[in-house]
Amino acid sequence: MRHAFSKLILLSCCILFSPYLFTQTDSSPGFGENLSNEQFQLEKQFDDMLRAGNIRDWMKRLAARPQHLGSPYRKENAEFIRAQFQEWGFDARIETFDVLFPTPKIRILEMAEPVSFRASLDFPSLKNGPAQAKREEILPSYNAYSIDGDVTAPLVYVNYGTMEDYAELERLGIDVKGMIVIARYGGCYRGIKPKIAAEKGAWGCIIYADPLAAGYGQGDVYPEGPFLPEFDTERGSVLDISLAPGDPLTPGLGAVKNVKRISRSEAQTLTRIPTLPISYGDALPLLRALKGPVAPPRWRGGLPVTYHIGAGPAKVHLKLEFSWDLVPAFNVIARINGKERPDEWIIRGNHADGWVAGANDPISGLVSMMEEARAVGGLMKSGWKPKRTIIYCAWDAEEQGIIGSTEWVEAHAAELLEKGVVYINTDSNGRGFIGAGGSPVLEAFFNQAAADVADPQSGVSIAKRAYARSLARGGDPGTMEISLSPLGSGSDFTAFYQHLGIASLNLGFSGESSGGVGHSIFDTFEYYSRFGDPKFEYGVALAKVGGRMMLRLADADLLPFDFQRFAAHLEQYLRELKEMTDKMRQETEKENRYVKEGIYRLAADPLEKRILPGIQESVPAFDFSPLESALNKIKANSGLFFQAWKSFQSSQKVISLERKQELDRAMFQAERSLLRQEGLPRRPWFKNYIDAPGFYTGYGAKTLPGIREAMENRNWQEAKEQIRLTAEVLERYAAAVQKAIAALNEAGK
Amino acid sequence: MRHAFSKLILLSCCILFSPYLFTQTDSSPGFGENLSNEQFQLEKQFDDMLRAGNIRDWMKRLAARPQHLGSPYRKENAEFIRAQFQEWGFDARIETFDVLFPTPKIRILEMAEPVSFRASLDFPSLKNGPAQAKREEILPSYNAYSIDGDVTAPLVYVNYGTMEDYAELERLGIDVKGMIVIARYGGCYRGIKPKIAAEKGAWGCIIYADPLAAGYGQGDVYPEGPFLPEFDTERGSVLDISLAPGDPLTPGLGAVKNVKRISRSEAQTLTRIPTLPISYGDALPLLRALKGPVAPPRWRGGLPVTYHIGAGPAKVHLKLEFSWDLVPAFNVIARINGKERPDEWIIRGNHADGWVAGANDPISGLVSMMEEARAVGGLMKSGWKPKRTIIYCAWDAEEQGIIGSTEWVEAHAAELLEKGVVYINTDSNGRGFIGAGGSPVLEAFFNQAAADVADPQSGVSIAKRAYARSLARGGDPGTMEISLSPLGSGSDFTAFYQHLGIASLNLGFSGESSGGVGHSIFDTFEYYSRFGDPKFEYGVALAKVGGRMMLRLADADLLPFDFQRFAAHLEQYLRELKEMTDKMRQETEKENRYVKEGIYRLAADPLEKRILPGIQESVPAFDFSPLESALNKIKANSGLFFQAWKSFQSSQKVISLERKQELDRAMFQAERSLLRQEGLPRRPWFKNYIDAPGFYTGYGAKTLPGIREAMENRNWQEAKEQIRLTAEVLERYAAAVQKAIAALNEAGK
Repeated sequence: MRHAFSKLILLSCCILFSPYLFTQTDSSPGFGENLSNEQFQLEKQFDDMLRAGNIRDWMKRLAARPQHLGSPYRKENAEFIRAQFQEWGFDARIETFDVLFPTPKIRILEMAEPVSFRASLDFPSLKNGPAQAKREEILPSYNAYSIDGDVTAPLVYVNYGTMEDYAELERLGIDVKGMIVIARYGGCYRGIKPKIAAEKGAWGCIIYADPLAAGYGQGDVYPEGPFLPEFDTERGSVLDISLAPGDPLTPGLGAVKNVKRISRSEAQTLTRIPTLPISYGDALPLLRALKGPVAPPRWRGGLPVTYHIGAGPAKVHLKLEFSWDLVPAFNVIARINGKERPDEWIIRGNHADGWVAGANDPISGLVSMMEEARAVGGLMKSGWKPKRTIIYCAWDAEEQGIIGSTEWVEAHAAELLEKGVVYINTDSNGRGFIGAGGSPVLEAFFNQAAADVADPQSGVSIAKRAYARSLARGGDPGTMEISLSPLGSGSDFTAFYQHLGIASLNLGFSGESSGGVGHSIFDTFEYYSRFGDPKFEYGVALAKVGGRMMLRLADADLLPFDFQRFAAHLEQYLRELKEMTDKMRQETEKENRYVKEGIYRLAADPLEKRILPGIQESVPAFDFSPLESALNKIKANSGLFFQAWKSFQSSQKVISLERKQELDRAMFQAERSLLRQEGLPRRPWFKNYIDAPGFYTGYGAKTLPGIREAMENRNWQEAKEQIRLTAEVLERYAAAVQKAIAALNEAGK
Repeated sequence: MRHAFSKLILLSCCILFSPYLFTQTDSSPGFGENLSNEQFQLEKQFDDMLRAGNIRDWMKRLAARPQHLGSPYRKENAEFIRAQFQEWGFDARIETFDVLFPTPKIRILEMAEPVSFRASLDFPSLKNGPAQAKREEILPSYNAYSIDGDVTAPLVYVNYGTMEDYAELERLGIDVKGMIVIARYGGCYRGIKPKIAAEKGAWGCIIYADPLAAGYGQGDVYPEGPFLPEFDTERGSVLDISLAPGDPLTPGLGAVKNVKRISRSEAQTLTRIPTLPISYGDALPLLRALKGPVAPPRWRGGLPVTYHIGAGPAKVHLKLEFSWDLVPAFNVIARINGKERPDEWIIRGNHADGWVAGANDPISGLVSMMEEARAVGGLMKSGWKPKRTIIYCAWDAEEQGIIGSTEWVEAHAAELLEKGVVYINTDSNGRGFIGAGGSPVLEAFFNQAAADVADPQSGVSIAKRAYARSLARGGDPGTMEISLSPLGSGSDFTAFYQHLGIASLNLGFSGESSGGVGHSIFDTFEYYSRFGDPKFEYGVALAKVGGRMMLRLADADLLPFDFQRFAAHLEQYLRELKEMTDKMRQETEKENRYVKEGIYRLAADPLEKRILPGIQESVPAFDFSPLESALNKIKANSGLFFQAWKSFQSSQKVISLERKQELDRAMFQAERSLLRQEGLPRRPWFKNYIDAPGFYTGYGAKTLPGIREAMENRNWQEAKEQIRLTAEVLERYAAAVQKAIAALNEAGK
């Protein structure tokens, strides 16, 4: 769903090496040097089955035509995927949901003043698009879930359109009320741009991909190079996914046939103002026609104009009308029931739908997952069966707002809460370095898998190569462990992790396959074969990591959850929160002093119009002790659990399946205690109190989000209340770990 | 000489507030709260005479036509300035030097492959040029002291063309031997670009002003806004001023009529390869025609192309031929002999020559100095006479390589060494904030003057406004003192400070009058009236600071030199040097370890051509103790001097003029001990061992340059030798301060 390559880059930026002094051998329940010979042989057999050729061929087939939600080829692809899974021995079905999906009827963007211009809103040629596409099959560039609208107003340039950008506009004395804003892609999820613009009173929102970030400013444009040409642009949803992802008419419920739907006017996650993405070719005349203050340096892009903010004199007319249809979303769900613990589900997913052909986003990840599943099927054919249930999912409608996976999770919530052990997500994949985010309890487990997979280009482990890159870029040596970054949103882990509290991972390779054509007609097999992963060897590597983790999770005698990692991450999040608060307090004091002393007035250029800062409310002292107390319990308990686990392991005691299941359950259910059923303030769908996408970032994670966002909004009362609620959540988690210790002790008797 | 506005920005960036805990009242021999009523009245009388209208009118007159070295209007202007000084009561003369000045006969730049293009090398219209200019009077865009040449070669883009840039090219496996390089302005003095390019084996050098730094990337272009339009560009000298400024045919000697001149082929400071500046309009087709690796992000400018490095396929033909003439440079030297200590010279200067009209660079500073001098003349007419000799200088040929002032200094070196007390320089001036560089012994003195001048826009002192700006930009509160930045080169203080060791200051206002048209036809009175200092009030403010310092230096009972400030700066320079060395050592160790462990190989993209780092020679341990020992003596002696000065002051003892002169002499001659007569390695003209322009930066200062540049070049043997020589210099300085203490004690008897 995220712009294809920016997601990859994000993942790769998130590679931080863990400061915790664990070593692999004794860090964690799991598979470090304790990998059994049996498991080793199984994984070798698995690896030997993987073929880059399959990955390549499936991409070529699946990305041959536009295959967005509701398109004929999407249905064909879903059926093809199902058939493959069936052939490999899975119980594979298509689960269909009927979801709201607007497609454009009218798109007009024109400027009457100071010069006349009508945006083409079109790509000139299909030549570099999907191999078998017809023009009429391709969705034109638009932002799904923009409302219909017809507005004429002066234009204002708002940079990325983030809260920080509007704060800068305020300082410049510029109000966007009654204006149409133009924002460049970047800085936040695109749906945040119309959300904030509407809150600020704007009437319309235009989004464009600036060539500095996506086009010639990064490198040669397609077909010479991998970057975005002058015409066509990033399509994309503007559904308010930080309020709630999924079908906007069935919030909290699976969008099955006869579920009760709210009306479109009741839907909370559509935009409030008409919104349209345009190419940088179309943006140039609009930006050139702006006057008013020159944009601050960091707001300037790569077009050959002076970036002005406006408002006006450019006056634009934006007219949008959509066909608001219910369309079927086809999730392929393929299952192998566990032979021993069928009610423990290990779930793996990647979406299948693209905005056009979607070769990179998401087919590159999907086809790797398919090859992984084919090899799992191969193991089954040779007699192996998993202890736990394995479920592979090829989601639909991710691009529209993570809809396919969200509807499935909502439809099966009760059963998933009961049985969901782990969800492992992938999305676009490329050449380069492994990067991962996810639940800290899985960190050691993930690192063990990453240490056992060879990098296709260098031959060392993918973990070592990622570590080398971190060092070469000035990173701290520390340990060789990859620290999992916190999960925000932007792909199909969201509902599993944020809504249900199922331990999740999100991973992929990136860093050597840059590009800027995500969600455009250029994201094709031909493109990916040149600029993505030309040998499809990182597709194989991803199958090796993903498959390894699926096999280990499916067959582990006990689940490889490490609560100590959670404690360590939590300690860091809490430290960061306190540092942020202290810094805000000091900054506020300093700024207030400067205001009183006239420093800002003296430093300002009197010929420039600029609103000087005023006195801000001081940051009060906060009592963080309930959080610290809960953290200390979690630290103590997770340590005790680890000790108990070690002695349990060394005892080599044979215990009953029932005890094992109890112990597994105590472990994976602990993650549920991180939810608050009432959800986060103003967004009850988001129940996870450890991390969430920012309310005004959309993708980017905020840790301890209840407290953090209250602080950021300078809502001290809410911050205090959220400290209390978060501490309650953490106390429950401490108790859940306590319960796991008890289960372990019980089993060890 | 420096590109007009970049110089101002530089000054303003250099405002650092001193960490030393001096307060104004008792910091320094001088004028803090000890300003006498008599002096206060004199300065009030001085201030009351200053008129913005004069500054405005003289700028309009002096910048009405092109007035570069050797032009008819330059001579007229020199005569006009002399006449003014004479009218104000100065003994004013024109001192003429005959200096080498090449002007273009042939300028051809064309591309044959892959597309045909011939650079216009011209401005389309005179409309926005100087009011009374004729086209034939205007020097076309060229780089003075480029050699003649006719070369055809593939083109390579080298970013700024600094040593760091060539290191990056080396990592990319790109060799410029036999190529023509194209570099953008910025990063170093323009003359460094052909210097390094030639060292690297290039055959020619093209320089252009990228719109990101000078044009539409900064703001609206002229005439809508202050930035550089598509055609015309920054003219400028490429004389190797970091080797030696001044006339290239008379190194070390004043270029008087019958002095022995070396031949052009013997001259060391001409370029080794033909060099030409072009507009960004002319650069665009050339850069668009490059292929090869995409330039690293920080190398990319604001043109709407992907910046490639090449080499080629662009192949260019550069042909340059100059008329190598000796032309007269007219320095106006205006003097008032001191009534009491005529052999102590307080010298003030600003250059008068421009590349075209030069309204901002240098007339804005010159006319302020003229108004200052007019008011000094007014004081004389009312009966005042300075104790010491005052000399005002309007230099010629600064733009060609600081030639006018350098020749004068070289011609009068013996007398200046004997009598030169202080040199105060200004150059371009604008709206905004005071900034200053100079000899640390003058820091407290400068701050006292800055505390006594009101900022025209806010009413607070210019010191306080500069301080407010530093705070508002996140600077450390510290004390309100402005720390003088070290002097490199780039204006007329160079010969005084670097060659003769005369304590110097360089100051100006900047920060609210940005622009990018320096050395172009657009630097006119009309331009400056809109974008420079429209009310000419900062011209008045500069006259107040400059004049105040001249009056105080001329009349001080004892010279206001504070050796403690020197000690504090020196301590900082030494600390920075040690930190730099330690950091180099640690980095080298780390990098060598990474090389051995294969980190860089693993982190590199195998599909990208890149030379991986190899093992570097370790950084040895250095014995800094001779420097520390000398520093300690200087600290001790400067403290003792201050104590002695305080008790001398409180004794209010009447002492003889002879004793005062001895004491003055001991103070101002101490600065001479910072010279080494043999000069710095490879550039004997630069004798100051405390700071110098970088050998490969040209303008930017390097402190303790003998040691620092040896370290930077990883020449450990030379670094050790330079530690020894620098320590000798510092020991001599400690002894000189000791001598001043003795003189003070003697006087106090």
